[in-house]
Amino acid sequence: MPRQLIPRPTLQRLPAYLNYLRSLPPDTRSISATAVAAALGLNEVQVRKDLSAASKSGGRPKTGYTVGILIRELEEFLGYTSIKNAVLVGVGRLGGAMLAFTGFEERGVHIIAAFDNDPAKIGTEIGGVPIFDIARLESVCRSRGARIGILTTSPLPAQELCERMIGAGIEAVWNFSTAHLEVPEQIIVRNEDLSVSLAMISRELEERNHGK
Amino acid sequence: MPRQLIPRPTLQRLPAYLNYLRSLPPDTRSISATAVAAALGLNEVQVRKDLSAASKSGGRPKTGYTVGILIRELEEFLGYTSIKNAVLVGVGRLGGAMLAFTGFEERGVHIIAAFDNDPAKIGTEIGGVPIFDIARLESVCRSRGARIGILTTSPLPAQELCERMIGAGIEAVWNFSTAHLEVPEQIIVRNEDLSVSLAMISRELEERNHGK
Repeated sequence: MPRQLIPRPTLQRLPAYLNYLRSLPPDTRSISATAVAAALGLNEVQVRKDLSAASKSGGRPKTGYTVGILIRELEEFLGYTSIKNAVLVGVGRLGGAMLAFTGFEERGVHIIAAFDNDPAKIGTEIGGVPIFDIARLESVCRSRGARIGILTTSPLPAQELCERMIGAGIEAVWNFSTAHLEVPEQIIVRNEDLSVSLAMISRELEERNHGK
Repeated sequence: MPRQLIPRPTLQRLPAYLNYLRSLPPDTRSISATAVAAALGLNEVQVRKDLSAASKSGGRPKTGYTVGILIRELEEFLGYTSIKNAVLVGVGRLGGAMLAFTGFEERGVHIIAAFDNDPAKIGTEIGGVPIFDIARLESVCRSRGARIGILTTSPLPAQELCERMIGAGIEAVWNFSTAHLEVPEQIIVRNEDLSVSLAMISRELEERNHGK
């Protein structure tokens, strides 16, 4: 059964609902869309719509959603329950932090290998993930069927490494390098640029100051 | 002169334009909105509108924008040119990576101090930023006029630390903890949740597979 394309803004809000539901006291059996909206400061109509897109079971008129079921439905909907192999390229500080982060597995992403060109790092491991020579990028990606490539290098080698990953079967590139990547149309690129967040914070601070 | 509120999606695209302009060969004197749109795979009308929101000088009919001037205008518009003091709370792997990251300064954010409760970390420094005992959070924030608090702890102590920062004058909280934070209305919160990106990647991979 083909999944329906859902609007990106909805998809962006779903993990926040999931985080909130997981943070509830364990004895909370059910919750209404109204309560979720109030807790997260969102519009109630929107929350209702978002949850009904993700939940097959649906909420009941008075009690709302059963928390445990809604959590499982959100997890499945977000793709957290189907594990996809990933590789990470560039074991600097950020790359190292990501390898040590334990939250990927429970979100459906299994980092099977990392790559670097620093002899001091090659052959070691972080968070149980082995670090290989970058020369082995293609062979490891192919033999393990890696689908996601996490790019945590500096901007300079990013385009070349991106192309090598795609050549080795990677379907989605998660780009932390700040480089602008040129990729074939069928490849998914998600740019993670902290400077966007910084810009939002800076602008808002200034707008508020000027508004005073 | 009060700044105009600009739409968030525009603000989200501006750093990408800036990255792209900075990546151009140094001898590129001018560039058209058309060329920027083509390079970034965006809609031309949108790019034209975004750039005109940020650029006072404006593009000229044939040659477009002068690259150097447009870069400076974007930097100013994004708040990168007005330096704001920030503190970072939680010097784990992610916190350490952020302290070592050299890109904040050029984006208007000066991290003046970091805090942790680990005696092995207190008194040391990373990337030139001193690490203090968390007990000194309030006094350092106040004495240095810190306006931005970067929260890189686990979710559990996040709310309490957030409240302490706000009590010490922090106006904006950049939250990497995945905790849902309750803050007074006038406080800016920006949640950085990598699971949102992971969910987007996972869903897109699945949608494409099912579409095959």
